Amino acid sequence: MADSSYTIGVDLGGTNLRIAAVSPEGRFIEKIALDTEVKEGRERVVTDLCDAIKELERRLKGSKLAGIGIGVAGIINLANGTVRQSPNLPGWSDFPVRDDIERRLRTHVILENDANAAALGEKWVGAGRDASGLCMMTVGTGIGGGVILDGRIWHGMDGMAGELGHMTIDPNGALCGCGNLGCVEAYAGASAITRMAAAAIRVGRSPELAREADALGELTAEIVYIKAKQGDLVAREIFEMVGRSLGVALANLINIFNLPLYVVGGGVARGWDAFAPALMAEVRKRSLVYRSSSTRIEPSSLGGEAGLLGAAYLPHMRDPQWKNQ
Amino acid sequence: MADSSYTIGVDLGGTNLRIAAVSPEGRFIEKIALDTEVKEGRERVVTDLCDAIKELERRLKGSKLAGIGIGVAGIINLANGTVRQSPNLPGWSDFPVRDDIERRLRTHVILENDANAAALGEKWVGAGRDASGLCMMTVGTGIGGGVILDGRIWHGMDGMAGELGHMTIDPNGALCGCGNLGCVEAYAGASAITRMAAAAIRVGRSPELAREADALGELTAEIVYIKAKQGDLVAREIFEMVGRSLGVALANLINIFNLPLYVVGGGVARGWDAFAPALMAEVRKRSLVYRSSSTRIEPSSLGGEAGLLGAAYLPHMRDPQWKNQ
Repeated sequence: MADSSYTIGVDLGGTNLRIAAVSPEGRFIEKIALDTEVKEGRERVVTDLCDAIKELERRLKGSKLAGIGIGVAGIINLANGTVRQSPNLPGWSDFPVRDDIERRLRTHVILENDANAAALGEKWVGAGRDASGLCMMTVGTGIGGGVILDGRIWHGMDGMAGELGHMTIDPNGALCGCGNLGCVEAYAGASAITRMAAAAIRVGRSPELAREADALGELTAEIVYIKAKQGDLVAREIFEMVGRSLGVALANLINIFNLPLYVVGGGVARGWDAFAPALMAEVRKRSLVYRSSSTRIEPSSLGGEAGLLGAAYLPHMRDPQWKNQ
Repeated sequence: MADSSYTIGVDLGGTNLRIAAVSPEGRFIEKIALDTEVKEGRERVVTDLCDAIKELERRLKGSKLAGIGIGVAGIINLANGTVRQSPNLPGWSDFPVRDDIERRLRTHVILENDANAAALGEKWVGAGRDASGLCMMTVGTGIGGGVILDGRIWHGMDGMAGELGHMTIDPNGALCGCGNLGCVEAYAGASAITRMAAAAIRVGRSPELAREADALGELTAEIVYIKAKQGDLVAREIFEMVGRSLGVALANLINIFNLPLYVVGGGVARGWDAFAPALMAEVRKRSLVYRSSSTRIEPSSLGGEAGLLGAAYLPHMRDPQWKNQ
């Protein structure tokens, strides 16, 4: 490894804390996977994070660390490096996480929203490696988004751009965690999938899902997906709703941006085959720009690694925290 | 005028054809207003357009013509200067309008979509003169859009970006002229306003509107606006629907772009006071980015001149037909 260089990427989520050393070509060199000990408090999480970075530096002694990028599950204040809002990291609001980490590591780090980092990862070595721009919806428990325009993350004036999960797709629709009615997140996130399945079980519409949930002692989006693949009608209806909802949101984004590529990532994207037909039908119906251009819509090609790789790419960018408007 | 320079802007709509000489500071020097003789065919319209430009050149002899920009009511193919689609200019599809005009005038002209030109006009000398970016919805018969990012029109890969009027805001909603259900244009454009008013008259819900339409021999969005201001309940409901619909669309755009300014222009924007309260209430409810940033939402400050001024600004831009992705 002597003479070579690497960057470190961090994916700081509400559940998992992952740290990786990545080559300039976007290949993993070393990885550390931890639980995010959210309940132990910020101090513990930041200590774990910094210890892991130091451990990677030790392992790669002789190579040059070219920079550190950190993707955080929350809205970032680019100006001062705080977490502005994060439902997944309770108690972190307005905490100067960047300064704290920089003090401990005695080096510069770049903070980024995790969905923006994921979009950047796909652009670097994923589905978008040949595209100069893309728009990505990261569909996990909730839905995040990242927009890459002309090779750079579009941050907007406060770093809050790309809140794609809270696009209204049905003005009198389902209640979203944000308090609004009819956000796409309320129809297509993993929480929405389990909510719809639980409702179907409650009214006796899906004995099959009820049995499975009982047997496993839990009800997850993955169980609903497996049942959909096995032909259960209610589970299939739910994934059709996921596809139609993402399709409405993507049709809008295609009409707005006219980008070459739209990527669906996050855990729910593993159910691509179950929701893609409904998604594509909706986009064709609703986007005149799609119908007259060669727009690609694809599942993430990096899966759960998109955010980690994107974070590791941040130090390679010119002016990664470009504030634009 | 000797030693001074000017540009010429053209606003080529389905009804009006306007040509203006504009100073480098964005002030009108001379204006020619004609009807667009759509029924007489393309040849006639292009001849009128070129004759007017030549007439302005004659009037401003001694000043230097620094360039010509033309805003066209249609989707423009930036690569070859054709009108890709235009419901307002039937028979112009795929017509090489730029080449034709350049051949007649023996000089270079810059073609642009009219809603993009309007957004650029507002950025130059209108509501956005202090903003580096803005997003504008032009609400006329239908709804067009233009997005200015970091001072430049966002064209997307084919020049089709900014189709904001066909954003789905209610997936099972009203039928739009584009064939889709629930586009914002189907709720907030002038056609939608008269459609909603006609429906209310038909079922006897608004004798007041019926009387007025009878007396005037027509039913226009402006009549509905005047009745709303006079307190007619049905007319007020219609403008509330306009406001709520534009509010849903703007909330989505604010969550996506996090820009400093959103402008509502076009003829319907003259009814700003009748629809703005519902619009703002909807945005506050639906956009978390709006609630935590200092986003401005304003009516056009140039009114019907935005597109003409924006067209005249095109020659001042570096790489005005920037194809981005």
